[in-house]
Amino acid sequence: MSGSTFGTFFRVTTWGESHGPAIGAVIDGCPAGLALSEEDIQKHLDRRKPGQSRYTTKRKESDKVQILSGVFDGRTTGTPISFIVFNEDQHSRDYGNLATTYRPGHADYTFDQKYGFRDYRGGGRSSGRETIGRVAAGAVALKILESLHVQLTTYSSSIGPIHIPEEDMDFSVISQNQLAMPNLDYAKKAADYLEQIMKEQDSCGGTIQCRINGLPAGIGEPVFGKLDATLAKAIMSIGSVKAVQIGDGIQVASSTGSQNNDAFYIEENQIAKKTNHAGGILGGISDGSEILLTASIKPTPSISQVQQTVTDQLEETDLVIKGRHDPIIVPRAVVVVESMAALSLVDLLFQNMTSRMDNFVDFYLRGEP
Amino acid sequence: MSGSTFGTFFRVTTWGESHGPAIGAVIDGCPAGLALSEEDIQKHLDRRKPGQSRYTTKRKESDKVQILSGVFDGRTTGTPISFIVFNEDQHSRDYGNLATTYRPGHADYTFDQKYGFRDYRGGGRSSGRETIGRVAAGAVALKILESLHVQLTTYSSSIGPIHIPEEDMDFSVISQNQLAMPNLDYAKKAADYLEQIMKEQDSCGGTIQCRINGLPAGIGEPVFGKLDATLAKAIMSIGSVKAVQIGDGIQVASSTGSQNNDAFYIEENQIAKKTNHAGGILGGISDGSEILLTASIKPTPSISQVQQTVTDQLEETDLVIKGRHDPIIVPRAVVVVESMAALSLVDLLFQNMTSRMDNFVDFYLRGEP
Amino acid sequence: MSGSTFGTFFRVTTWGESHGPAIGAVIDGCPAGLALSEEDIQKHLDRRKPGQSRYTTKRKESDKVQILSGVFDGRTTGTPISFIVFNEDQHSRDYGNLATTYRPGHADYTFDQKYGFRDYRGGGRSSGRETIGRVAAGAVALKILESLHVQLTTYSSSIGPIHIPEEDMDFSVISQNQLAMPNLDYAKKAADYLEQIMKEQDSCGGTIQCRINGLPAGIGEPVFGKLDATLAKAIMSIGSVKAVQIGDGIQVASSTGSQNNDAFYIEENQIAKKTNHAGGILGGISDGSEILLTASIKPTPSISQVQQTVTDQLEETDLVIKGRHDPIIVPRAVVVVESMAALSLVDLLFQNMTSRMDNFVDFYLRGEP
Amino acid sequence: MSGSTFGTFFRVTTWGESHGPAIGAVIDGCPAGLALSEEDIQKHLDRRKPGQSRYTTKRKESDKVQILSGVFDGRTTGTPISFIVFNEDQHSRDYGNLATTYRPGHADYTFDQKYGFRDYRGGGRSSGRETIGRVAAGAVALKILESLHVQLTTYSSSIGPIHIPEEDMDFSVISQNQLAMPNLDYAKKAADYLEQIMKEQDSCGGTIQCRINGLPAGIGEPVFGKLDATLAKAIMSIGSVKAVQIGDGIQVASSTGSQNNDAFYIEENQIAKKTNHAGGILGGISDGSEILLTASIKPTPSISQVQQTVTDQLEETDLVIKGRHDPIIVPRAVVVVESMAALSLVDLLFQNMTSRMDNFVDFYLRGEP
Repeated sequence: MSGSTFGTFFRVTTWGESHGPAIGAVIDGCPAGLALSEEDIQKHLDRRKPGQSRYTTKRKESDKVQILSGVFDGRTTGTPISFIVFNEDQHSRDYGNLATTYRPGHADYTFDQKYGFRDYRGGGRSSGRETIGRVAAGAVALKILESLHVQLTTYSSSIGPIHIPEEDMDFSVISQNQLAMPNLDYAKKAADYLEQIMKEQDSCGGTIQCRINGLPAGIGEPVFGKLDATLAKAIMSIGSVKAVQIGDGIQVASSTGSQNNDAFYIEENQIAKKTNHAGGILGGISDGSEILLTASIKPTPSISQVQQTVTDQLEETDLVIKGRHDPIIVPRAVVVVESMAALSLVDLLFQNMTSRMDNFVDFYLRGEP
Repeated sequence: MSGSTFGTFFRVTTWGESHGPAIGAVIDGCPAGLALSEEDIQKHLDRRKPGQSRYTTKRKESDKVQILSGVFDGRTTGTPISFIVFNEDQHSRDYGNLATTYRPGHADYTFDQKYGFRDYRGGGRSSGRETIGRVAAGAVALKILESLHVQLTTYSSSIGPIHIPEEDMDFSVISQNQLAMPNLDYAKKAADYLEQIMKEQDSCGGTIQCRINGLPAGIGEPVFGKLDATLAKAIMSIGSVKAVQIGDGIQVASSTGSQNNDAFYIEENQIAKKTNHAGGILGGISDGSEILLTASIKPTPSISQVQQTVTDQLEETDLVIKGRHDPIIVPRAVVVVESMAALSLVDLLFQNMTSRMDNFVDFYLRGEP
Repeated sequence: MSGSTFGTFFRVTTWGESHGPAIGAVIDGCPAGLALSEEDIQKHLDRRKPGQSRYTTKRKESDKVQILSGVFDGRTTGTPISFIVFNEDQHSRDYGNLATTYRPGHADYTFDQKYGFRDYRGGGRSSGRETIGRVAAGAVALKILESLHVQLTTYSSSIGPIHIPEEDMDFSVISQNQLAMPNLDYAKKAADYLEQIMKEQDSCGGTIQCRINGLPAGIGEPVFGKLDATLAKAIMSIGSVKAVQIGDGIQVASSTGSQNNDAFYIEENQIAKKTNHAGGILGGISDGSEILLTASIKPTPSISQVQQTVTDQLEETDLVIKGRHDPIIVPRAVVVVESMAALSLVDLLFQNMTSRMDNFVDFYLRGEP
Repeated sequence: MSGSTFGTFFRVTTWGESHGPAIGAVIDGCPAGLALSEEDIQKHLDRRKPGQSRYTTKRKESDKVQILSGVFDGRTTGTPISFIVFNEDQHSRDYGNLATTYRPGHADYTFDQKYGFRDYRGGGRSSGRETIGRVAAGAVALKILESLHVQLTTYSSSIGPIHIPEEDMDFSVISQNQLAMPNLDYAKKAADYLEQIMKEQDSCGGTIQCRINGLPAGIGEPVFGKLDATLAKAIMSIGSVKAVQIGDGIQVASSTGSQNNDAFYIEENQIAKKTNHAGGILGGISDGSEILLTASIKPTPSISQVQQTVTDQLEETDLVIKGRHDPIIVPRAVVVVESMAALSLVDLLFQNMTSRMDNFVDFYLRGEP
């Protein structure tokens, strides 16, 4: 179990290395009868495709997905769905000293420690290209969520020091800027900041927020299978994420009970909350209000500056990483965060179907005595 | 699968409600031959026991643990270890309107939404007493880690607005103050703050840090089974945790690559890092340096102030929660964070045993041709 | 993971040794709202209790079960259900040379090989008393199945050489004889055979059949999660079972396609089959007809005759096992087979709830647009 | 979770339909450093390839496997290994009434009941072609077992009424006859029988045995994770298997304890058994002697005779299945049984690595104080 499988009920396994022949994923557990086409997947893959803005690597990949199984006559059959994306930009090249030198901030050293050797071409399995499989599977999860009218809104909430206050967010403009920010003025400031960072041959980080609306109350399992715990694992499993917050997140630590408790009241004959410090989750279970999660993304570790490092022969050396690298991965990671959130939600929605006897009996005996 | 099981190789299932006859846990997957006594467990349970300081509930529980299986002649047998702690303070009492009223910040409403009804006595399964099972199992995990000289140092790094700067931390004094803080002056300030909060019939939150030293490099699985992702799930599954950070955590978002990358160098013929922004984890795998995780804990939701809320009959009402409640749970949650971290580490240490063929062959063929 | 957990959705963990203080089980994943009392469990435990006929050990155990969690006001809460049965007959005794001598047909030698040592008192974890946990959990599964009108009929189909032909079976008499056979004449013959076996200080085996009626079509997952594969694992996991057959079982190997295929026809506007060689399962999925499984049980390995064996010091020795032992375990194992079948069915019934999108959408959106 | 994943530590997911573009498998959990080439896989795939004898379908498939990930420089990297085999014979054809008619003995009806519709082309997911993924993964498991000198000998022990007595078996001739039988005279008799069956437009079944030698003692987990239970699930999950026996299998039911117990003795300073009725497994754990499992395979349900059946519109109809079909699948299923046994063994060998503390400590601290 090398850990490449996510989920219990909607189970996704991703496979593939950056410079192998192909990369892909298998979903085991998608219900039968969901309308699904390659275009449904492609539109999300295109959100993370390289070469779409001046802030991404020049690697040329069309990242065209093919569905190899599990769909018949345009609908899922209930059996495993296999996706494949062939790597196009995998021609032999000069990897220079990357086979023997450990890049700071990368997994080169830890892979060698764990496995004794590694596929050093482009980061191998720890490459960001691994997320292609996540996004392909996430696209299916998003379609399932759509059928329940569950909506995910995901965006760059900050880039480097440029942080958008919640009151200035306009989610309708997220797709109108290359940085996936919910405010065009801040996006302009962030772009200026990125130009400066690029001039300095440096990189920067940022934060991504995902807001989930329309999720029924009652989703998530008490104790270890909490909704927030599941989301935390899913989001922290994305390379470069170093913090996950739910609702008010780190601010709760300096708050008080009287401030932080969300008072219940009745609105239109339904239970509602006056505030949402909790981020839509109480005791690990959704309460029907908006779920807010925030992921903090570290700066891209590949920078063009000279860096001090070591080789696998325990010699100190200077490293210059060639080629152009993403000065920031935040905008491209937005769809990955959304995908991982969607995979978590679908898994827990399926799990919740067995939480009550009355539902179970009704499911099997509908109308029977 | 109601989600009460944690881990794959070292698998822990907790059970029990706050006011049921008993509470407990079962470990399935503890290796044979570990010396284990009830005292090994008890000393950790005592760290979370109520009634030990003026900052905890007055509930009287001795929380004496019994081992019911899996230990023979003082050593584990490799078969399931069952722990039980009888609830002593479970006599019938007046639960007032708690059966029908939803306490803000608690799981009352979401449990009802999920299950259709709930055990309303003392929070039932969502009570902090559930963590007794975690701590009992965690104590075994800590013993296993001890055998590898892996050390966990866990403490309250902030209480309300009182935050101890890293350079002022002295871990030797953690056990010398009731707040489990690594600085006695700050502990005094925090105590003063708590007095004020208690006067205001309010509560407060804080942060807990866990530092892990001595873990070999190579632990954690790439992709979904990352060490940081596993820790994030483990820690976020503790009620009241709203954020998890690894290493520099949220600060990475406003850092740059040149600042955030930890340069490798050679020290005493070993690979070392000049800084540790990454918190000991690269690509989801331990790099052999100190692992730092930080959990943000929300204020105790049970406060004595009058709160606005609703009933399960959709009527608005005022709520006054009777009895004395912990104005802060941070000091008692320290051992829970440590337990969950320990459970995560042991699970991944076991998993890592199958990562290399040479180790596998050596394990079974030692010295054979 | 020492393998003491069964199931994915309805997950059961058993714990406890023959001569430890207690034995028990935890169910994680029982839906909320099932009416459940200790009596519901006890009646099945009483079916396997020792001391009820002259064919069982004289060990005195009342085997009274207590429910420690997961039930409130007579109904399951959706959280883990913990069962405990205290071992009464666990007083210190003379285990003679059992600590160092390997009993033929028992797990003494293999436990030592696996774990390095073992709890030798009464077989420890490999004792038949482990099945108490299975039966307790199985009783809950049987209640769940009852709510869908799924019926299990389980009985001794043969004892030693006494085999009841299918046409002579009368299931109404199973509970009218101590051997749980569906024919009183054959039960008499079997009793005579057992008397002879007991005189010879020997033991014998037999077969158990379980017939499942009322299970909806569509249960079981294709490929590895087949209904028959799940049942095979469940039944083979019972100590002493050496063969599992579905439907015609081993007879299919010498049959032909034209004989073995069950022709479909229409009866009362429903699809039916003229024969049922398949035993109610096609492609690993239930077809709505009766499921038949047959388990072959080996003779009790504990016999009073002198046996040749060895010690853990690699010395040959003669072994005489003291005390009275069950000359046959088949009648007491009937409820264990039924329990394991029930656990398998419930797990797959839950899993099947997520097999179709239309059901999923209907579950969450009932009546909503 | 549609059930297409096998194993916990060495986890295999198969995907693909008979007439989709491709079929494949992903292994998650193969250790790093195993030498692996496509040829290692191909040689086992060729054992099940169609068109190799007059007893198989004429479907033309070269079944050439490609490894898409997880192998670098000829060695496994520890990350997921993805296999693909493109379906060549998948051109559009006339499926006649198979889209609406339920073939007796097939999964057509049960798939429709479960999923609401099905991929009717060539059986879709329930096709024997699904086993390509099992064999590809099994080939890797067999390489791992080879490194421990564990040997599997698998063969057709009977075909229709032609059953080879154990004393007449010569395993060296298995690969010298198209029926994979361990006796050439019996193979000739079986061939004659098959000619007759084919003339009658009928099909027949048979039995497959797998003998495992060299497995260390101590493999398998007590209770639910028994070695025999794991094997039973693995083997029963192969389509057409209706019975699984371990060692003496069904014969134990009519044996006595004194006959069936295998006496231990000392041979060359090692513990040995005088007989092996148990088939190498005691208490679910390997005892170091030969493991014997027997699978009973039903006759191929596709026969050319006219059969009575029904349509999905609940009309009775006559069915004639066109084309030539395997009159027997036993010889081609031999490698599938071997593959599933190998997958089970590797999974349990990995699991067993965590069974003892001394091994764990030694693994991580080798030579350290």
